[in-house]
Amino acid sequence: MERKRYKIAVLGGTGAQGMGLALRLAAAGHEVTIGSRQAERAQAAAAQLSQRLGGRAIAGADNRAAAGAAEIVFLTVPYAAEQATVAEVRGELAGKTLVDATVPLVPPKVSVVQLPNGESAVAAVQQNLGETVRVVSAFQNVSAQHLGELDHAVDCDVLVCGDDQSARELVVGLCEDIGLRGIHAGPIRNSAAVEAMTSVLIAISRRYKVPGAGIRITGIVKT
Amino acid sequence: MERKRYKIAVLGGTGAQGMGLALRLAAAGHEVTIGSRQAERAQAAAAQLSQRLGGRAIAGADNRAAAGAAEIVFLTVPYAAEQATVAEVRGELAGKTLVDATVPLVPPKVSVVQLPNGESAVAAVQQNLGETVRVVSAFQNVSAQHLGELDHAVDCDVLVCGDDQSARELVVGLCEDIGLRGIHAGPIRNSAAVEAMTSVLIAISRRYKVPGAGIRITGIVKT
Repeated sequence: MERKRYKIAVLGGTGAQGMGLALRLAAAGHEVTIGSRQAERAQAAAAQLSQRLGGRAIAGADNRAAAGAAEIVFLTVPYAAEQATVAEVRGELAGKTLVDATVPLVPPKVSVVQLPNGESAVAAVQQNLGETVRVVSAFQNVSAQHLGELDHAVDCDVLVCGDDQSARELVVGLCEDIGLRGIHAGPIRNSAAVEAMTSVLIAISRRYKVPGAGIRITGIVKT
Repeated sequence: MERKRYKIAVLGGTGAQGMGLALRLAAAGHEVTIGSRQAERAQAAAAQLSQRLGGRAIAGADNRAAAGAAEIVFLTVPYAAEQATVAEVRGELAGKTLVDATVPLVPPKVSVVQLPNGESAVAAVQQNLGETVRVVSAFQNVSAQHLGELDHAVDCDVLVCGDDQSARELVVGLCEDIGLRGIHAGPIRNSAAVEAMTSVLIAISRRYKVPGAGIRITGIVKT
């Protein structure tokens, strides 16, 4: 069965997490544009990834243009830039799905759980954007390094949180497209656990001296 | 290599989680006493478990007596009783390790993450008890049902958080004793992620209609 191909923007796509996701989404056949504050930086990253993919091209643009042209917008910026980036593209998001992969890491203690205002960072984004944007949280626990290695399977599930079930369903499908297992993990508030788990995975990776520990959910059979 | 056998109290050991842990700890050769507010209830639960174990006996006592006689104290009470139980046994805990398995579930919405005061419930316990008690958080993600089925392997890792490394080490060893993999997951603050993850696992179990989803950490090799 042919899966639907989407126009996807990856904002902050010049970082490791964004480049890994853009690479896999493009390899799966989606039409990907990398977004950055500066169009030139986005285009440079896009050119680099396009080369890795052989013929298949990834585009680059500034964040607003990238978001404006997309059906689905990924947000993969550092935590400190999350709210500013959302504000920048706010006008381009109405009626779309925003997939937020931001983790509230507060350097230098990135291996210690930080809960912004005692809750999920992405829950605040959903609240700011209101109901016209379907916000989904996903991909926080997947190591950027593993994502970037296209020929490797990634041994990590993607916990997908969001208040809109059909938007979660869409993201679970995108996970499948890029070789990951997406799992419905409840409303957007539940993203607090997933965001916080990234710090735990960093702590574990350091303790056991491995490049990127991940998680798997056990005991489920997908319906 | 013979492992050390400990005197262990399981407070709240008349609940499903406590009974499962008591059962497995006793089966592994530890000297287990179930604690409850009422000694009679603890003794009834202990008698029931002792019968399941054949000859090996589990004792029952009120919480203070159980904690007083133990080297290691497990806390497996409902969230609403956590602070009161800690206050009740406070005088018995000095110099000991307290293993807190409490999950801040707030009925009826137990499948939605609740963060008490925006942080970990057990971090507050460590703060209240001070440095003379080594508080370790563990076992929140392990389904009581799976724990209670002695002849089944439990397909779930135990994330072990605590500020004292040797106390964490002790609990990782206890996990091994009862057939589980314990993983060092950082300081007590990181327990916020683990506690919150239990609500996510409940949400997942409901969504996928399974009795008790669990988690595994991937990409590590134990040292």
